[in-house]
Order: sequence, then structure tokens, then C-alpha cells
Amino acid sequence: MNGAHAVARTLLKSGVEVCFANPGTSELHFVAALDDEPSLRAVSCLFEGVATGAADGYGRMTGRPAATLLHLGPGLSNGLANLHNARRAATPVVNLVGDHATFHKKYDAPLESDVDALARTVSGWVRRCGDPAAAGIDVAEAVAAATGAPGQVATLLLPADVSWSEGARPAPPLAARPPAAVSAQTIGTVAAALRGGEPAALLLGGTATREPALSAAGRIAATTGARLLCETFPARLERGAGLPAVERLGYLSEGATAQLDGVRHLVLVGARAPVSFFAHPGLPGVLTPDDCRIHTLATTADDIPAALDDLADTLAADTPAVLQAAVRPTLPTGELTAETAAAVVGTLLPEGAIVVDEANTSGLWLPGATAGAPRHDWLTLTGGAIGQGLPLAAGAAIACPDRPVLCLEADGSAMYTISALWTHAREELDITTVVFANGSYAILDMESQRLGTPANGPAHRDLLDLTRPGLDFVALARGMGVPASHATTAEDFTDRLREAFAEPGPHLIEAVVPALF
Amino acid sequence: MNGAHAVARTLLKSGVEVCFANPGTSELHFVAALDDEPSLRAVSCLFEGVATGAADGYGRMTGRPAATLLHLGPGLSNGLANLHNARRAATPVVNLVGDHATFHKKYDAPLESDVDALARTVSGWVRRCGDPAAAGIDVAEAVAAATGAPGQVATLLLPADVSWSEGARPAPPLAARPPAAVSAQTIGTVAAALRGGEPAALLLGGTATREPALSAAGRIAATTGARLLCETFPARLERGAGLPAVERLGYLSEGATAQLDGVRHLVLVGARAPVSFFAHPGLPGVLTPDDCRIHTLATTADDIPAALDDLADTLAADTPAVLQAAVRPTLPTGELTAETAAAVVGTLLPEGAIVVDEANTSGLWLPGATAGAPRHDWLTLTGGAIGQGLPLAAGAAIACPDRPVLCLEADGSAMYTISALWTHAREELDITTVVFANGSYAILDMESQRLGTPANGPAHRDLLDLTRPGLDFVALARGMGVPASHATTAEDFTDRLREAFAEPGPHLIEAVVPALF
Repeated sequence: MNGAHAVARTLLKSGVEVCFANPGTSELHFVAALDDEPSLRAVSCLFEGVATGAADGYGRMTGRPAATLLHLGPGLSNGLANLHNARRAATPVVNLVGDHATFHKKYDAPLESDVDALARTVSGWVRRCGDPAAAGIDVAEAVAAATGAPGQVATLLLPADVSWSEGARPAPPLAARPPAAVSAQTIGTVAAALRGGEPAALLLGGTATREPALSAAGRIAATTGARLLCETFPARLERGAGLPAVERLGYLSEGATAQLDGVRHLVLVGARAPVSFFAHPGLPGVLTPDDCRIHTLATTADDIPAALDDLADTLAADTPAVLQAAVRPTLPTGELTAETAAAVVGTLLPEGAIVVDEANTSGLWLPGATAGAPRHDWLTLTGGAIGQGLPLAAGAAIACPDRPVLCLEADGSAMYTISALWTHAREELDITTVVFANGSYAILDMESQRLGTPANGPAHRDLLDLTRPGLDFVALARGMGVPASHATTAEDFTDRLREAFAEPGPHLIEAVVPALF
Repeated sequence: MNGAHAVARTLLKSGVEVCFANPGTSELHFVAALDDEPSLRAVSCLFEGVATGAADGYGRMTGRPAATLLHLGPGLSNGLANLHNARRAATPVVNLVGDHATFHKKYDAPLESDVDALARTVSGWVRRCGDPAAAGIDVAEAVAAATGAPGQVATLLLPADVSWSEGARPAPPLAARPPAAVSAQTIGTVAAALRGGEPAALLLGGTATREPALSAAGRIAATTGARLLCETFPARLERGAGLPAVERLGYLSEGATAQLDGVRHLVLVGARAPVSFFAHPGLPGVLTPDDCRIHTLATTADDIPAALDDLADTLAADTPAVLQAAVRPTLPTGELTAETAAAVVGTLLPEGAIVVDEANTSGLWLPGATAGAPRHDWLTLTGGAIGQGLPLAAGAAIACPDRPVLCLEADGSAMYTISALWTHAREELDITTVVFANGSYAILDMESQRLGTPANGPAHRDLLDLTRPGLDFVALARGMGVPASHATTAEDFTDRLREAFAEPGPHLIEAVVPALF
């Protein structure tokens, strides 16, 4: 058996079932191995950032890694931005990167580059497979490394000759590092802080934004009076009617600072201490008040649900969590704006939807408008690397074929990885993409106001503009096989969104809205 | 004056006139500085790979660097693949990457990553600007580093607070490292080898593929009987009627080995010793025969035109170079294929055209069909990182506004950076893009035949296929404001290409051709 076959077989044995692929010559033996492993589903992507973003979406929804298949340093380069988001989301990903044959690297052929250095920037684990005899074990270790707590990107560099050489064999699965138990002392310290009666809040991240941790956190909050906050950009937030209501920390540091004003104890549960997204002159980088004590109940490497259960037990937290009521907005009429579009989404969001949110400024009203919708998951831009939404939606849809996916995209961000639409069409994924077409990088106008940079200069106006020429997302989607339509009024948008939700498979709606800034 | 203004002003003083930009928040002070420097043309790109590829195209055509403007590690990541191509082309590029404020990096905010490590993978020079007082000098050094022989990517990391802080001032231009003189001893050694009467060839790369070096090389070849070869992927090859005819080394190692068969002396002139693009089992990595002596006349760091002149003088090389005759193919009729399409291109190619060639397998007949066309430049995929063509064309068109640009694209490669079409439209660039739509990653079918991997397995067939769904490049182009049409016969293609050449501004023609493999 050659190395490639051992890699493919070991991936399957280790529970990896999907490979998001953009192969080149160096990966053809692995492609041939996939021929013999039909249970390992190969999903074709036209750009590596689609493959890596899809692997992120898949991993967020299943807790298990998908594999990627990338071509040498340049292929990995194209996939890095979404691997950066995956790293921030602590998503398990087995990032498989083909490389030149071991004996060929010395020639510094045109595609040669420092692929190891590239890999290290996004991976918690990197290995260069040097020997077909070790290929199986290397893969088993990669899967374990990706899956162990917290999840991470594990990159395996697979030279072409390791793939094609005989003498390999599959390896059995390896145990992944389990989440660490949180000590009784830590639980006790946090419990004491919450019992003290001073204003407190839990800041949830990682698996704490999902059931069952969420409910335990809700009971703790209800019992102690602590507020329930979550990170600005959670990897996956379970929310909607019947779940504990969680307040997301604002993106703008001014807002987040206001949310945290008066908090004397902030308990981190799978989240990091909040800092501002960007530096701004005169605004603090640390968002907590000076007199706020920060307690870490659990990191993403810890057993978060157990820690919250233990904390709830210690606190005798039996007051029921405050649950989000089932409430929908009223269907709006008239002008289509970011606000009325959000109301339409909130009214129509189906039960069990997976919402991928890269709507940026046009998404301002979405969390509020959907808070009381039927239970759903909300996936966000964890690392700030735009171009995440369309790929993430592809991975989430493949992870959860029975759930509708709603991908909410800003027009500017959509263009970074627009070819993901082709994968939506090819795999007949049940994804409804809404592109909020406001014709500008509006978030930069907002940031410019905060920074005090001039907003009316010729370069500023020019570089933020997306209307010269306008982007026709309906044409772009159709060009890649996705049925698409425009919506220019609230009623239009309602009709188009209803149709898209009712019909399986991918759809795109270009929602023409004014820019907020 | 703040750091951003000093950076912009120093770029201009140092001769940088264009900035291919995809800014984010950290770059807004630099955008504001561009407002005040209208001579520094900002060109908006929807994806960083477009910005970096355009800077490569600009630098190849002018010999002077353009600046990029990228946003932190993820923005740089998206630009890396085309910077890899620029590195291989030895193109001068000032790669300007905004970063978090110096005091903000410690917070490890979501967009934070190891941007320095990323930069080092593609840059010959990297500096992190740490102080507004030094910003001007840092930029002057960056431009000199980019421009010095050989050209390279010089990356300047510009923290947001360095941009916004006062106390900066522009710096005067610095002298770039001049090309090194080649010693008389080296000239003498090479002259002796060429005089020896054994079969010899010159292998041209770098500036040796352009005038005036090319003509000197042609006289040397004609006088000594040495053959005139050039690299497989020259950064910029001047060719066409009236120029010395140069044989490009084949992409397939079997072909290149045959071309080099019997050569006893290979003289490298700005080229590296030829190696195979990929390793293949049983095929050699080194393409020269065992008994071939390799002589280095000049590297890309050397004064190549002077070295060739000196060598010609030493050899008394006054036999006129063999010049390419003016000859055009006959206009074909009937089926549109890669071969008939090449004949159409060869028939219609305008005088002074800049041809960007990322046609891959569909380009097989293009060099032959255009060899005797009026003088033109041919830019190729130097680093093998696909997704180069459309951005490179944008940069070449901005560099040479009076010359028509013909961008020859494979359908698969086009999709990596398809949003470059928007920049073509926005800047009203005189670029005719031909997408050879063969519906597959055909080069991988070819490579699969060479590697002996099975070509009919389900994963192989699926991952190489681009027809499910088909990509409609006419819709994609129109969606980004570029007029576009299909061509399905040779006559169609002739008409469409004539129209596109006749009319200023961008056009796209989807040339539907069968796959060769």
C-alpha cells in the first residue's frame, strides 16, 4: 500500500469523512487513493480559501475535523485566511498539504517555498511526513491533535513521494486529548466571587455558548444575579426561543465598555478577557473596568460543561435560567434597509437553521430581530478575516444536511471567496445566501468616523466604493449555477426569502440596502 | 506630519506612483494620506491576490515598484500566492502591510497573527516600522531594496499608531543596489567554452529575455552556433517579428530533456540551471545531460546586458542574430479548439501587445502561432501559483496604458482571482481576456498520465471536473462590469477578438474549447 492510500484509510478510521479539496499534481496519488475510499467524501472547491473555510464550518457543526487538500505553499497561502478564522474558533481541522517529493525540494523548483513556516502561522500542530511507513501514524496523530481539547488546525505536509511510495499501512485511531477537569479550588474561587453580591458577569466562549453548558450558565446567572455575556465573535452560538438569552459583547469598544461598566467580577468560561478589536487613539484596549476582577473558570482546553455543572452545584443554582421568549418581528413593508431586512429574516428564520453571519454593518439589527426565532445556531467571523461566510456555509451544510443554512453576507466580504457559490451549486447544498448590497466597504466609513480620519477625500471615497461598476450578484451567482434574484423592497425580500427557504438547494438573494455609514 | 503622510510622500519621492489597495481599518490613516497625494494613484482591488498580482504585472513592465496596501496577516495571506510569483519573477514590489498599533499587539486581538513570518516567506527584505520618525527612511529603504538588482518583494509592516502619530517626515530617495559587473575572468571562461566547438546553448532569464540583452545574445548565438533558449516561465519575454527567436524550454521535463540533449555547455544568463517543475517517479529532476557543463555568465543580480555585450565583444560576435520572420497563421474556420484559437490569436495579435499567459494546457499552440506576430511581450506564470493572469493583466495595463493587453486564461485558474475583472472595468483598462473554457483542470489529467495514476476513478473524475455546474464566464464578467461574449467556433472567436481589440476598455471572451487531455 502506498502512502496516499494509508493516509486516506487512516483518515477514515479516525473518523474523518469529508475532504474539501483543491488538488494539484503533487496530490494526484492522494486523489487516486480517494477513488478507493468512497466513504471519504471529496468536495471540490475552486479556491483554497473555500476549502479551508468549509472545513471550519464543518468542524464547528460536528466537533469533528474535515480534511482539506491543498497544493504546496501557494495553495496553503490561499487557504490561510480562513484557517486563521478556524484557529480563532478552535475548530478541529486536518489540513493536508501536498508538497514536492522529498528529493525534489533541493532543486528550488518554481512552486517551492517555505511551506512549513506558512503552516506554523495557523496550526497548533505541524508535521512533515517523511516516510511512507510513518504516514498512517502521522495521520492518526494529526486527527488526534486536531480533535483534542481545544480543537485546532493540525497541518500534515505530505510529500509527493511519500504518497506514491509503497510500504505504508493505515494506523488505528489515537485518543485525542480530553478536556481538562477544572479543579475544585477554581470552582470554589469563582463561586465565592459570584456569591459576594458584587456585580458580576459570565463571559462565555468556546463550547460554553452551546448546550448543555449554556443552560448551566443560565441557571448560575439566574441564581447569582450575574449577567450572561458571550464573546463578540463566538464560533457557534446556540440561541433562539427556549434557550438562555445571552448578550453578545459589542464589536465597538465603546459599546463593549458600556456593557461591562460596573462589572466587578468577570468570569471567563471558554472566553478570553475582552480587548478591543482594533486600537483607536484615546480608547482603551482592555474593555473591562479597572476595578473588575477577572476570574478564569475554564479555558477552551477545559471541560467547560462539567465546570459549569460543578459551579452550579456548588452554588446550588436551581433558579431556572431566564429563557428567551418565542417572539418574531412584524413583517415590514416598504423600503428595504438593513433594519427591515433583519425583521424579515427574524420573521422567516426556520427552526433549526444554521446562520452564518458575515453581514458586517448590514447585520446590525440581525441579532435583535432573530433573538426570539426558533432555536438555531449562529456562526460568526471569529478571526476577522473576511471572505469566510460563503465557504463556512458550505461546510456547515455538508455537516448538517437536514438543516437549512442561511448565509448573511456583506457585498464586499462576499467577493473574497465568491467561487464558493459553485460548491453550493455542485453539492446541491440547502444554503440561502443573502448578499446585503450596500455598495461600499461601509465598515471602513464607520471606523473612519471613530478614528477621525477624513471621510470625503478622493482616495477614501474611491477605495471604499463598490458601485463603480456595481456588482451584480445575481449574474455572479447564476454564472456559478446558483439560482438568484434581486430584492429592492421589504415585500420583495420577504417573497424571495420565503421561496428560497421553501425550495431545497442553494439560492442567492441580492438585498439592495443603503449603507449605514 | 504623521507617519502615514510621510510614507505616502516618500513613496512618491522614490518614484512609486501606483498603489494597489485593499485596505482595512489599520490602513485608514494611510488612505487619508493618499487623499493628499493625488499623484500616487490608488487602484482598488476586491481581493488582496488581485493587488499583489497587479503589482507584479506593473513591476514587470516598468522595472519600478508599485506599492500594495494590505490589511494585517490575513490580508497579506490572501496576497501571498501572487507575491510568490513576483518573487520568482524578481519583480520589484513594495508590499505595504498595515498592522495593529504597536501597543495593541500584546492583546492578541482576533486579527493578530504572525505577520512577520508570513512576510518572510515571499520577501527579500522585511521591516517592521516602529517609529513615525523612521517611517520616511524605512520607506525609502523599502523602495531601494525592492528596486535593487535583482528586483524583489520588500515588505514594510506599518503599525496603525505609526501611521497616525506625528513627528514623521518624508525621506529622500535612496540609491538602489546596481547590477553587479561580471568579471573579465567569467566572460573569458564562457567565451572559451563557446569557442570550443562543442554543442552549446545560452539559457536566458531575467532581463536577458528583453532588449537590448536579447540582441546581444542573438549575435553570440549566431556567431558561435550556440542555441538560444530561455526559461520555461520567463517573467517577461520580448518576442515577435524582428527580434531574435528564442526557444522556450518545455514545461514537461521529457520535452526539456530532449531540447537539452547533446548540449555540452549550457551558459546561464539570468536563468537558473533547469530542473523539472515537479518530481515524477523515474524522471530526472536535473534536466541537463550528465556530461553538460553549466557555466554561469550572469545571475539576475548582475548587469546582464553589459555581460552579454562584453561576451559578444570578446567573441567578436558580429554575425547578425537570426531574427524571427514576420509570419502569421492563416485564419482558421470551423471548430474552435486550443489549436484554432491559437491561430486566431496569432493572426490578430496587435503590434505592441502585452500577452499575459495563464492558458495552461489550452495554451499549447499559442507560442508557435504568435512567434511571427508583430513585436510583443509575453508574461508567464513564474512561480506556478495559479490565479495570476487577471491581476497581472491589470497591473500591466496600468503600467502601459497605450498598449493593448491580451490575457489568456484557463477556466480553472481564472476562478482563483476572478474579481480582478472588476478592477479591469473600474479602471477602464484595455484588456482583452480570453477564457479557454475546457471545463476541466486538464493539466491534472495530463500530469496523471505522466504519473501513472488512474484517470477514471470517481474522485479523480469529480475533482478535475468543472462542468457540474458549468461556469458561465460571460455572466461572471458582466456581473463585474466587463462586456463579454461566448465563442464556440473559430469564426465566432475571430469576430469577437477583432471587436475586443478594436474597442478600448476591457472585454472578456469565453472560448469554448475541448480539453486536450
